[in-house]
Amino acid sequence: MTIAKPIRSMIEAFERLPGIGPKTAQRLTYYLLHAPPEESEALAEASQSLKKDTVLCGICFNVAEADPCEICASADRRMDVIAVVEDPLDMLALEKARFDGRYHVLHGAISPLQNIGPDELKIRPLLSRVHTGDVKEIILATNPTMEGEATAMYIAKLLKPFVGLKITRLARGLPVGGDIEYADEVTLTRALEGRREY
Amino acid sequence: MTIAKPIRSMIEAFERLPGIGPKTAQRLTYYLLHAPPEESEALAEASQSLKKDTVLCGICFNVAEADPCEICASADRRMDVIAVVEDPLDMLALEKARFDGRYHVLHGAISPLQNIGPDELKIRPLLSRVHTGDVKEIILATNPTMEGEATAMYIAKLLKPFVGLKITRLARGLPVGGDIEYADEVTLTRALEGRREY
Repeated sequence: MTIAKPIRSMIEAFERLPGIGPKTAQRLTYYLLHAPPEESEALAEASQSLKKDTVLCGICFNVAEADPCEICASADRRMDVIAVVEDPLDMLALEKARFDGRYHVLHGAISPLQNIGPDELKIRPLLSRVHTGDVKEIILATNPTMEGEATAMYIAKLLKPFVGLKITRLARGLPVGGDIEYADEVTLTRALEGRREY
Repeated sequence: MTIAKPIRSMIEAFERLPGIGPKTAQRLTYYLLHAPPEESEALAEASQSLKKDTVLCGICFNVAEADPCEICASADRRMDVIAVVEDPLDMLALEKARFDGRYHVLHGAISPLQNIGPDELKIRPLLSRVHTGDVKEIILATNPTMEGEATAMYIAKLLKPFVGLKITRLARGLPVGGDIEYADEVTLTRALEGRREY
């Protein structure tokens, strides 16, 4: 095998990313070799600054440029609603859905199989936020998976003692654009349970 | 949308890679955020050095660390056989198949649809190699696609005047591990044509 070291390193760096196998890593590398130099430079700069120029927000644990993050520092957003999400990507999705409250990023979900217990997540800081702030509602926006449900249930139990605090969970039901014919029975059961007057 | 600039740049850099959509770019970026810093540093270094530390070999046009490349500079490889390939990845594949001759990388294939004519490929330097060297055989190892076949045919025509030069093409037939039942008819026709005595 006579493959130049810079090429080998690039292939290896790509291969370490999740979901990228050896063939894709090779293809991406040779793509960059043929692409204008700006492409690989953009990749180099971005991956260099990704960790260096970001911090965890000390309030919501979002990955941000500043601490507190833009959302926590903003005066334009509702103070009384916090959406609890598993990771920053979920936060992005809610932002796109025009959620106007604040967030709390757990950085994972309870998963005994992966050895992730409540102490590995940012649950404790959430409790202190509820303690000290004017929070009226906590939306448990963890994923509709086994782990997400377990995490929501665990947090809901911890939040129960707070009198007057509303604890909600995102509605489960048919995805927009979906087909009833192909819906799994659990989703359909939830959609029936959550049906609304027309 | 409140997404930190370093994160946005990383997502954008990933998105520009072929076959990586917005969702995958996001997933890769957040993976790097949670991964140890060595991962993003490895990616940064590799993409920085990829273009900077590689050159095109002036003989075979392989992407290499030095010019001439390791293979062209080697005394251990056959001088009389050149495999003509479309791009460096094909060269890698032949290396794994233990080809022991030399290479010539065309950097593409003739494709009128993509506006790639013979002049965009490294065909002329191949002719001068055949002119000056002791080449006895040219293996046209372009892909078994429309473009690859057209390129092979074009080069074969140019090489015809060289008396005594053997021009070959990689065998077409059933892939090892494949199933006759699922072979397309063109492949099967080629496999029949190319059948050998047992």
